[in-house]
Amino acid sequence: MSEIFTSSITAPVNIATLKYWGKRDKDLNLPTNSSISVTLSQDDLRTLTTASCSEKFEQDKLWLNGEEHSLNSERTQQCLLDLRNLRKSLEKDDSNLPKLSEMKLHIISENNFPTAAGLASSAAGFAALISSIAKLYKLPQSNSELSKIARKGSGSACRSLFGGYVAWEMGELVNGEDSKAVEVAPLSHWPEMKACILVVCDDKKDVPSTSGMQLTVHTSDLFKERIENVVPKRFLEMKETILNKDFNKFAELTMKDSNSFHSVCLDSYPPIFYLNDTSKKIIKLVNLLNESVGENIAAYTFDAGPNAVIYYESKNEEIILGLLYKIFNKYSGWDKILNNESVINASKIPEKFPIELINDNLENWSSGVSRVILTQVGEGPMETSESLIDLSTGLPKA
Amino acid sequence: MSEIFTSSITAPVNIATLKYWGKRDKDLNLPTNSSISVTLSQDDLRTLTTASCSEKFEQDKLWLNGEEHSLNSERTQQCLLDLRNLRKSLEKDDSNLPKLSEMKLHIISENNFPTAAGLASSAAGFAALISSIAKLYKLPQSNSELSKIARKGSGSACRSLFGGYVAWEMGELVNGEDSKAVEVAPLSHWPEMKACILVVCDDKKDVPSTSGMQLTVHTSDLFKERIENVVPKRFLEMKETILNKDFNKFAELTMKDSNSFHSVCLDSYPPIFYLNDTSKKIIKLVNLLNESVGENIAAYTFDAGPNAVIYYESKNEEIILGLLYKIFNKYSGWDKILNNESVINASKIPEKFPIELINDNLENWSSGVSRVILTQVGEGPMETSESLIDLSTGLPKA
Repeated sequence: MSEIFTSSITAPVNIATLKYWGKRDKDLNLPTNSSISVTLSQDDLRTLTTASCSEKFEQDKLWLNGEEHSLNSERTQQCLLDLRNLRKSLEKDDSNLPKLSEMKLHIISENNFPTAAGLASSAAGFAALISSIAKLYKLPQSNSELSKIARKGSGSACRSLFGGYVAWEMGELVNGEDSKAVEVAPLSHWPEMKACILVVCDDKKDVPSTSGMQLTVHTSDLFKERIENVVPKRFLEMKETILNKDFNKFAELTMKDSNSFHSVCLDSYPPIFYLNDTSKKIIKLVNLLNESVGENIAAYTFDAGPNAVIYYESKNEEIILGLLYKIFNKYSGWDKILNNESVINASKIPEKFPIELINDNLENWSSGVSRVILTQVGEGPMETSESLIDLSTGLPKA
Repeated sequence: MSEIFTSSITAPVNIATLKYWGKRDKDLNLPTNSSISVTLSQDDLRTLTTASCSEKFEQDKLWLNGEEHSLNSERTQQCLLDLRNLRKSLEKDDSNLPKLSEMKLHIISENNFPTAAGLASSAAGFAALISSIAKLYKLPQSNSELSKIARKGSGSACRSLFGGYVAWEMGELVNGEDSKAVEVAPLSHWPEMKACILVVCDDKKDVPSTSGMQLTVHTSDLFKERIENVVPKRFLEMKETILNKDFNKFAELTMKDSNSFHSVCLDSYPPIFYLNDTSKKIIKLVNLLNESVGENIAAYTFDAGPNAVIYYESKNEEIILGLLYKIFNKYSGWDKILNNESVINASKIPEKFPIELINDNLENWSSGVSRVILTQVGEGPMETSESLIDLSTGLPKA
């Protein structure tokens, strides 16, 4: 039986603090504005992908979380084509290399979190797909170069090629060659960034982000102002707050940009709503907390769905998780802090926080959430010895 | 006992289709943009005010809905001063006139609807206050002139000085002398305009509009675009749709402007939310209906609260109320249409409307509303023989 070449990678989720919303080119996934994100720890949220190729494989195949999926989407086909072309040029330069570019691929992928929870799984998925094949092919390209391929698969996936703090520079070129992810600062620069994700119940079907953002591009009267003036200024400011580790200002910009993004959704015609009454309650809670402290120690942000991501610095963990645990302790996800007395007893909640508002109506404040995920800033894609393929069959391990 | 001079007026509520949101001068209530509204019928929503003055009255007094209220607010004081000054100049020109300007006022006012329901009661209230005193004083000023005084009391009140379709021209002057209401078209031009108000339950305290709009002015990055470009263009277009009785386009502009207004609220820092999940459900319902017909036959609009006002033309009443009655029939307010079989049986709902969405989850669609008000475009302030004063005591009738 012929050899199976294989490589396994894990890739992270990223949550934008300056939002990507709008494409100027749909085929190439070129955005209308630059964006910034924080890469989250793969201990909590990651995609593991094993890419393999072999002469004995008869067609390209993909398994996601145990089920076979089609690889036929144009976006995925474009990614595979780009990667094979890069491999092909290596093989051309060195005829000793095995002709991996001519072999079919078996790609096996698993998330360590529920795909459907609206947690940017496509970003981690495409980042892992591209990284695993790039490693299988031993491609010399930098992460920024690979991010352009990931971008074609799913725009925000390009930011998952890096750990820490990442910018997706929108670029200017028509062919998209300058629309790529770059590192703003590595994890080591500001490792104290934590995130609490409140997964919010959602009974309605949201507008998918791909069609939603184009509806905004074509119908929102306020959108032009956002992309021409608001975001370019905020992009520079946010990079600076990251370099300065100025959480107070970083939080302000993050919250403002989440608001701005949801504003242009609401300004679309017909309007798009991703925030629900539970999301609004969480926004209010974060505002009350920041007001009670007199500075921003927590920053909410919402993607194209009702889930809240709350960023904070580890030095304020007992304050923030103390408050959140007090309200949301009936949901799962608190294991990491169950031995922290200050959090469990909510003893660090600021004196000026109007805790009576919560106590008077705890049932109402705590409703509408389904689970909690405690995580933090993390690394970019990583090689792993864990493999999802059964080398005797070329299929996913049973 | 000395004579009591008295005059009674009823004044209407108006609901903006192009929203007033933002003051450029807080003292004079000068807006950052022009606005347009439809005046609603006083059969359903009106304030009745009896203004009276007498040498025997010892101080200015006000009774609202049976309870004595203070007249001390600066805004109200300014209105009374302006009206007295106009009367004073009449008395100066004709010494035979009784010196009403020197007498104290007793003002008695009643709404025919619950004040707290968030139904623009302050607009009707100030319009009735100004109109009743102007009539008591026999002032020769036009409604546009009087609207400038009403404006100082409550900005949107100026539009309640007219019936039909009304514009509040923002003006340019620093003293506000050109910031006034004008008639776009009278009721008789387009009498077919109907409105269904869905009063929505609201458990939270909204940000009051006066402070909310100034938060938006000072913190929203998208607001400038709204007032400088979006609204001025829409103002001209909306006037045209009214003159052309082009409901399809009127509805589009009305819905877009409601969305735009709530967008800049959400873009404020911290964000302001007036729409709740019930409001969003109603927006979705109107969109589904319009899509099923292939044109806009209904237009939602929301002020600074979750209540929906749905405008439509009388020719489509059976379609629109048929659908709304099917969903919201458990609430009060349907008396007017209970003898209309088509409405009761929902027999005119368009074939293409996805009625199964409603049938599958009627309980969910119908929740969150508290009452329904069926009304239509109406006249401006009107004299009435009904009086609220007991002439023997100078106090409200028992």
